[in-house]
Amino acid sequence: MWFIYPILVLQEPTTMLQMQSTVRADGHLELAVVDVPQPEPGADEVVIRVEAAPINPSDLGLLLAGADPTGAQALAQGSAVRLKLPPEATALIAARVDRPMPCGNEGAGVVVAAGESEAAQALLGKTVATWRGAMYSQFKLSHADQCLVLQEGTTPAEAASCFVNPLTVLGMVGTMRLEGHTALVHTAAASNLGQMLQKVCTAEGIDLVNIVRRPQHVELLRGIGAKHVVDSSLDSFWADLVETLTETGATLAFDATGGGDLPGRILAAMESAQTRLGSATTPYGSAVHKQLYIYGGLQRGPTVFDRTFGMAWGMGGWLLPIYLDRVGPEESGRMRQRVADEIKTTFASSYGKKVSLTEAVTPEAISRYGRISTGEKYLIEPQR
Amino acid sequence: MWFIYPILVLQEPTTMLQMQSTVRADGHLELAVVDVPQPEPGADEVVIRVEAAPINPSDLGLLLAGADPTGAQALAQGSAVRLKLPPEATALIAARVDRPMPCGNEGAGVVVAAGESEAAQALLGKTVATWRGAMYSQFKLSHADQCLVLQEGTTPAEAASCFVNPLTVLGMVGTMRLEGHTALVHTAAASNLGQMLQKVCTAEGIDLVNIVRRPQHVELLRGIGAKHVVDSSLDSFWADLVETLTETGATLAFDATGGGDLPGRILAAMESAQTRLGSATTPYGSAVHKQLYIYGGLQRGPTVFDRTFGMAWGMGGWLLPIYLDRVGPEESGRMRQRVADEIKTTFASSYGKKVSLTEAVTPEAISRYGRISTGEKYLIEPQR
Repeated sequence: MWFIYPILVLQEPTTMLQMQSTVRADGHLELAVVDVPQPEPGADEVVIRVEAAPINPSDLGLLLAGADPTGAQALAQGSAVRLKLPPEATALIAARVDRPMPCGNEGAGVVVAAGESEAAQALLGKTVATWRGAMYSQFKLSHADQCLVLQEGTTPAEAASCFVNPLTVLGMVGTMRLEGHTALVHTAAASNLGQMLQKVCTAEGIDLVNIVRRPQHVELLRGIGAKHVVDSSLDSFWADLVETLTETGATLAFDATGGGDLPGRILAAMESAQTRLGSATTPYGSAVHKQLYIYGGLQRGPTVFDRTFGMAWGMGGWLLPIYLDRVGPEESGRMRQRVADEIKTTFASSYGKKVSLTEAVTPEAISRYGRISTGEKYLIEPQR
Repeated sequence: MWFIYPILVLQEPTTMLQMQSTVRADGHLELAVVDVPQPEPGADEVVIRVEAAPINPSDLGLLLAGADPTGAQALAQGSAVRLKLPPEATALIAARVDRPMPCGNEGAGVVVAAGESEAAQALLGKTVATWRGAMYSQFKLSHADQCLVLQEGTTPAEAASCFVNPLTVLGMVGTMRLEGHTALVHTAAASNLGQMLQKVCTAEGIDLVNIVRRPQHVELLRGIGAKHVVDSSLDSFWADLVETLTETGATLAFDATGGGDLPGRILAAMESAQTRLGSATTPYGSAVHKQLYIYGGLQRGPTVFDRTFGMAWGMGGWLLPIYLDRVGPEESGRMRQRVADEIKTTFASSYGKKVSLTEAVTPEAISRYGRISTGEKYLIEPQR
């Protein structure tokens, strides 16, 4: 079949559109859709025609590098905008200056070219999802074994968010079991990820304490079956939280906000609940370990806490690839297969807006998806 | 031998002096030396005539309950002072109001009475150390198996600090090995505990990065053989710290300060060092886990940090009894035996001042030991 390649090269376009983020020495960031060579597969590789790729909060670090998303200015030439970086970004500027970075952690599409290996050939024509970056492109090169094959009848739009949110949710529940906790707390809980977590916890009979910031988010979560929802905008927040933590005994939290005093308040509320429950104590407070993992940074600015929760506590970063390393390839494979099997139910995502690559680099769009607000999630469709 | 007991009761005094800390509903704390009944041993118990008990930073929580140590006022009746509690102490007041608490975590003395069990009888006349509280008393009841017997020729003053500092030091090194790190960072490193840690690390060939707050503490630690000492009062602190962390590869820190930005700066400096060392990375920074344990609270006020150290990090409380539970009785026993064997060398403590019980509750003394300053450590000698 060696003669197929020259024909493909003649028939297919040799360039494609790709979104790139570039830091400039003058303290600005440029976001642009540019023409780049279309990839060609090696023996074990495939080329995916990318049909759908979400903009997750975890994409914004690379995409915007901390720039204020409301201040984008369109540039004269092509599909490009310019954003001002914050003054503290000097180290970042040094690391990234003038190096265009392709963006987009995950997405889905159809395999349109494959290397000669059996594994690669088997994927031709299949709808697959992957998550190795550069997904805001019309075509994406991938190793065959990094493709998750969806069931017949699953569209790329349905499969676009197979990794980041679903595996994070399964990783949270897995961490709970690995570290010996029996219930969970989650902040910014009305997000797509939060709704998925509620569905998984409902299915597995796990008590989940959802912390939200608005009354309408309480309704949203109750609507999908949540039993425990506390609203941090209410005066009764602290009392409500301690009450719910006493009821559930939750001693593990996943926090998407990171900054401010919420992480410390959650640990302090767990401590109050453990005191009420009459748990074992040390001279400094409860002897029961209380753990909070920060997995996002919705709240910029420093994390601040008074150490009013005894000595049996931990706070730390939580990152999906590190978790997957911890549990190993077999468990990771089981997690991925479950996602593929339940992508239309438990792990279904919804999007507030679907845009083309060029529509995603307008000041208007950036000001919206850069804000990270529940119900405003963007899906990029690079073939539009 | 049953007839010995009535004779003892007739000959020995039936009361003894004890230091007690009592929280009052009006927001004050009273520290007093009072007369209480002298304990009598059950079958497996002994009575220790306490000769020496140190005032450790870890004693101050129970002793002073957060009151400002410089504002003590002597009371008219007996050996007693009164201190004002801070306004945020309401929960503490509720928990402790009008309940006199005996103080003093550890100390040493001579066994002067013993129950009929073989284990208890074997301790009669022996110099022992123990750490179950109420050591600022003339006599202390203890289970026989909670006594650490010192070698012949060890004085109670030499044995007074057998537990808190020595076992903490061994626990830090043990935690390092358990959690897969190869070098250590320690703050407030010129303390008694810090000097012990340096001696243990020197003996075992472990790289220890000492962080101190004053130039004279650099000299003190170099004088006992420290290779790595950085002074946080210098303008070059950050650069010095990153340099030393690069040299040693330390990814585990024990912090005695707790409050302020030092804990976060240490994690950030570890991250910089790992970047320089070319360690494995994630899109968010180094993939190498960086851990900081807070084991003290020399710096009051909130802990504040920018999350500028990637996602592979943890911060947490560290408490000796929790560590001893984690490693189990066999390892704990080995640690204690090593302390008894090396109490005059590796684990020797020095004291700035030796006082009687009544001398320890004067406004002058409280203002000094309440400040927790290197070289100002107090030893209480209850038999004076």
